[in-house]
Amino acid sequence: MSDNTNTQAISDVDQPVLKKSLDVICGKWRLYIIYQLSEQDRRYGELRRMIPDVSEKILIQELKALVTLGVVRKTSFSEVPPRVEYGLTEKTRKILPILKQIMEIGEAFLVA
Amino acid sequence: MSDNTNTQAISDVDQPVLKKSLDVICGKWRLYIIYQLSEQDRRYGELRRMIPDVSEKILIQELKALVTLGVVRKTSFSEVPPRVEYGLTEKTRKILPILKQIMEIGEAFLVA
Repeated sequence: MSDNTNTQAISDVDQPVLKKSLDVICGKWRLYIIYQLSEQDRRYGELRRMIPDVSEKILIQELKALVTLGVVRKTSFSEVPPRVEYGLTEKTRKILPILKQIMEIGEAFLVA
Repeated sequence: MSDNTNTQAISDVDQPVLKKSLDVICGKWRLYIIYQLSEQDRRYGELRRMIPDVSEKILIQELKALVTLGVVRKTSFSEVPPRVEYGLTEKTRKILPILKQIMEIGEAFLVA
């Protein structure tokens, strides 16, 4: 927010802001889910197939957490059979470049 | 790394890379410690005073984990009394802008 006092801003870390950042990112599957939704909205079954290593219980729990955080939105269509789709919220779309850059952190430390 | 296939790269998430990113970031105090060291190297006692909310046990444990990951380096000076300083490695300095941007994620979701 305050670019004029950059070093000071980092030194006086705003703890609630940092905590919220970690809520969005941390958890083994959160960024993974966000990346999968970055191209287009997906039905629940599609997500299951795109992330085969995650259990059904955990995927549902993580999707619910991401919806509560405002990262993911869930849309229910009144069709028969009922259809549910997940997508990224506008807020998430705005910071998507930052979320994608997080992969570069791992790259930096995996390279010898 | 591969900017030419950006969407595909995100869809085929490289799990070891993502896991390494989360190792660096996640943990309540890791980014906090990194931010504190971003201006200059610090002695252990200085870090203790800069992060008063963390217990001694956890601070030592987290510093050790960050040294093992290659994020932080520890320098021991043969003085009397012995002096130990912590600082960021070159790898960490290179990706410091990304690490600082993580605060913007929290800002985006804290603002109503």
